[in-house]
Amino acid sequence: MNIKITGTGCYIPSETALNSSFYQHEFLDANGVKLDPPNQVIIDKFKAITGITERRYAKDHLNTSDLAFFAAEKAIEDANVDPETLDYIIVAHNFGDVRQGSIQGDTIPCLAARVKHSLQIKNPKCVAYDLLFGCPGWVEGLIQAQAFIRAGMAKKCLVIGAETLSRVIDKHDRDAMIFSDGAGATVVETSEGDEGILACESASYTRDEAYFLYYGTSFNKSLCPNTRYIKMYGRKIYEFACTHVPQAMKECLDKSGVSIDNVKKIFIHQANEKMDEAILKRFFRLYKKDVPQGIMPMNIQKMGNSSVATIPTLLDMVKKGEIESQSVNKGDVVIFASVGAGMNINAVVYKC
Amino acid sequence: MNIKITGTGCYIPSETALNSSFYQHEFLDANGVKLDPPNQVIIDKFKAITGITERRYAKDHLNTSDLAFFAAEKAIEDANVDPETLDYIIVAHNFGDVRQGSIQGDTIPCLAARVKHSLQIKNPKCVAYDLLFGCPGWVEGLIQAQAFIRAGMAKKCLVIGAETLSRVIDKHDRDAMIFSDGAGATVVETSEGDEGILACESASYTRDEAYFLYYGTSFNKSLCPNTRYIKMYGRKIYEFACTHVPQAMKECLDKSGVSIDNVKKIFIHQANEKMDEAILKRFFRLYKKDVPQGIMPMNIQKMGNSSVATIPTLLDMVKKGEIESQSVNKGDVVIFASVGAGMNINAVVYKC
Repeated sequence: MNIKITGTGCYIPSETALNSSFYQHEFLDANGVKLDPPNQVIIDKFKAITGITERRYAKDHLNTSDLAFFAAEKAIEDANVDPETLDYIIVAHNFGDVRQGSIQGDTIPCLAARVKHSLQIKNPKCVAYDLLFGCPGWVEGLIQAQAFIRAGMAKKCLVIGAETLSRVIDKHDRDAMIFSDGAGATVVETSEGDEGILACESASYTRDEAYFLYYGTSFNKSLCPNTRYIKMYGRKIYEFACTHVPQAMKECLDKSGVSIDNVKKIFIHQANEKMDEAILKRFFRLYKKDVPQGIMPMNIQKMGNSSVATIPTLLDMVKKGEIESQSVNKGDVVIFASVGAGMNINAVVYKC
Repeated sequence: MNIKITGTGCYIPSETALNSSFYQHEFLDANGVKLDPPNQVIIDKFKAITGITERRYAKDHLNTSDLAFFAAEKAIEDANVDPETLDYIIVAHNFGDVRQGSIQGDTIPCLAARVKHSLQIKNPKCVAYDLLFGCPGWVEGLIQAQAFIRAGMAKKCLVIGAETLSRVIDKHDRDAMIFSDGAGATVVETSEGDEGILACESASYTRDEAYFLYYGTSFNKSLCPNTRYIKMYGRKIYEFACTHVPQAMKECLDKSGVSIDNVKKIFIHQANEKMDEAILKRFFRLYKKDVPQGIMPMNIQKMGNSSVATIPTLLDMVKKGEIESQSVNKGDVVIFASVGAGMNINAVVYKC
């Protein structure tokens, strides 16, 4: 028995925020001191490292669970399944529904219950739960779905990654420019052929790394000390990811028995273009190979980093021919790989 | 192969809040109108229905993940396992770490990562994630752990339910008196004998019921309209639970093949004494039986409703002889059953 993705869908929020929308921001350092370079210089450097020129934000009246629902509807349609036949709805996110103007995340009920409600599914045997695993949440949801299928507890699962990071950013922190909103969804089913998940790998590095990404106060010390925002030690994350992600990808690929030469595409969490390129370079170096041209589709330039949503969104866009010069064909072996808060890492080797 | 609980532990917060601590509260209705009866009458009626005479609150400096860690340490010791051999740490909760004085829940990193960090586990292959499934979260974590074991992805899992509801209650709402703080943890492993999980059942009722429990504004309309608290439609939940929980328990028991006469104990989510009694009565009525005396251990009188923590806490206390006239013996068949936000329901038939 194998487990495959039979449908994909994504929701790309309608509000575009260009890099120029940050020109008027007052960027501070961690001590609250205004950064020296003019914003134009800060933004140019930011773009050179991350590759991001614009990002998407959800409209004010929409929340993470709404984005998840929109993506879910498309994945269900793409898979051509009756929603009443779903055994699981798994929603990966990090902050719950954070309404515009509120600082609280709302997870009562969990977002999966909200999505199921919006999909108007009656079948109570469709179990709806949320999974918190940092940015690798969608990949982990895929891994959990395959566990339920292998254990004989499910046949069809809907796995969603959705996030509205625009609601938890500190506008005085340069890193705010990285984050965006989005949702990607996939329907996962048993497969009779040899396509589907060939191997998977998960890891949680928490001893020294647990708080590399954290919920912290604003760099602007005059703001409320009880209000927290998404914060990160970018340099530490970069070094951590470049060391551990290639290794996890290699372990996963070796477990699958597929040769590095047969890997057609790598869908990596869209966190930072330079970091993703460095991870790929080190991954291929482990096999003493150069990185093949065009093996890593990217949409971070226009989409930013929407956490759990980046991989399923990218996969959906590539499958539907929406990324220039990128496609996946039946039989192609691809890798999904992610890294994020926890610090968590995972990888899946998948035959299309 | 079977899957059993090899160790239990709980953390009971040190602060006791008696019912009398609510004498001075201003209880309002949903429209913000002061309730007519004197508080003594309100509290006496509350006690008659819920059975609660006191509840536990965590000390100000402790958060949900701390409680989870304390319970985890005890379960690991009780199971006598090397923490480095754990394959999963699953933490069920609802609101993240809500610091005293803050209204934000903190889930970056997820609480399982914090627990793993506090346990000083080095092994990166121990995967730490959070599960949001309302009050039935711990039971669902147990079900997920067995899925990973059955799928060959794990051998040992640590499953924790932890919550600090005292940080999200509306003091103007009578229902605030129900909620409490706590944590319960269990180590789950493969078993060579016939003991362990015999059957399980999960359901999500979201079509009409998704918002029976929700995050809503205070009954005191003069408070910040952007601050939300745990809120519930008690009457609707009562009716829902009494209809659907007995049915889910019966489906689960029938699936296990065990006769109702051989069920020794029922560990039911400690939500409300009268509701739990009504659920049990209806469950036995489905078999045309009366409820056997002493079959339902309870600790709600002193512990209140700590959401995901009630069942693992109760199990630990019964196992350790801390509930008068209650015990479980090797070979006893017991049922775990829960209901909560989602609305989610689950049940596990388990042989000790």
